[in-house]
Amino acid sequence: MSHFLKAHIQEIINPTDEEFEVIQNFFTKKRFRKKQFLVQEHQHVSEIFLIEKGILKSSIIDNTGKEHILQFAASNWWISDFAGFFKQETSSLAVDCIEDSEVYAISYDDLNTLCAKIPMMEHFFRVKSNFGYVALQQRILSLMSKSAKERYEDFIKQYPGFIDHIPKQLIASYLGVSRETLSRLYN
Amino acid sequence: MSHFLKAHIQEIINPTDEEFEVIQNFFTKKRFRKKQFLVQEHQHVSEIFLIEKGILKSSIIDNTGKEHILQFAASNWWISDFAGFFKQETSSLAVDCIEDSEVYAISYDDLNTLCAKIPMMEHFFRVKSNFGYVALQQRILSLMSKSAKERYEDFIKQYPGFIDHIPKQLIASYLGVSRETLSRLYN
Repeated sequence: MSHFLKAHIQEIINPTDEEFEVIQNFFTKKRFRKKQFLVQEHQHVSEIFLIEKGILKSSIIDNTGKEHILQFAASNWWISDFAGFFKQETSSLAVDCIEDSEVYAISYDDLNTLCAKIPMMEHFFRVKSNFGYVALQQRILSLMSKSAKERYEDFIKQYPGFIDHIPKQLIASYLGVSRETLSRLYN
Repeated sequence: MSHFLKAHIQEIINPTDEEFEVIQNFFTKKRFRKKQFLVQEHQHVSEIFLIEKGILKSSIIDNTGKEHILQFAASNWWISDFAGFFKQETSSLAVDCIEDSEVYAISYDDLNTLCAKIPMMEHFFRVKSNFGYVALQQRILSLMSKSAKERYEDFIKQYPGFIDHIPKQLIASYLGVSRETLSRLYN
């Protein structure tokens, strides 16, 4: 039995041990190395991932080849191209590892079967989806209406303890500023 | 019985007439005039709204007093400050009417009670939350990685039929461009 997975699920619902055994069987533990991709652009998005260990990012490459980082994620976060996954379309985003990572993966069909089988998982995923929405709204408001300094402060609040694990170049890309501007924000 | 509400819910689930009567009782029909606010910044977010008629927008005012529009919404869409609502915090956004509007409102406690009472509504709101996430992800990727012309094309795709109902100044604000730039995009 995965204590990590159980503790993560118990943050929201309280399944019995028997129910938890059923739930766990719908997930597949996967390991990825630094720089490996979990989701690639323009490909079918087959799974969403709950992170046990490691740090990952989701990003988009624009027409000029520049990478724009949508989100970082670490232990206890979910990551994927959720839009591609929920619409069962090809991915707009890429998801890859900043560090070696261990995740629990669940497929689209398994997610729906699990929710039908254990209805409290429907509640779990509704709450998780709401929280995902909240994080994305904060991100978009930060991008639309805040200065680089305020975005940097939001970043520190959003990802406490991340700063030392993420290359400066990626933080600059996330904030939408140059490396030089980022250095000034540090001081 | 509201045919509109029933048809909207039947897009995802299929309650019996008895179940639908219960569901309907959790919603309150409300009417708002053009320019009236449904959600105000820095206030408690008590409800989310399903729009039957009208056009609304959600937006944020930055420190310089400039309005940034997050989303427009019309019939069959949901609108609120979902982040404030789901976290039960005060609002970062304002939601107001571009035209006279009619909506179905549901409160936070009623939403949770309804989901507990009619479990298929948990599924309904999970799917709706996922779709909301999808719309927000498209919005953020558009803002981060696309040119003004591409953002304008995304806007037309996202809001078919809206163009003639929304003042040009608001479209420019949504796209993050000046009125003059918007005029050039029209041609």
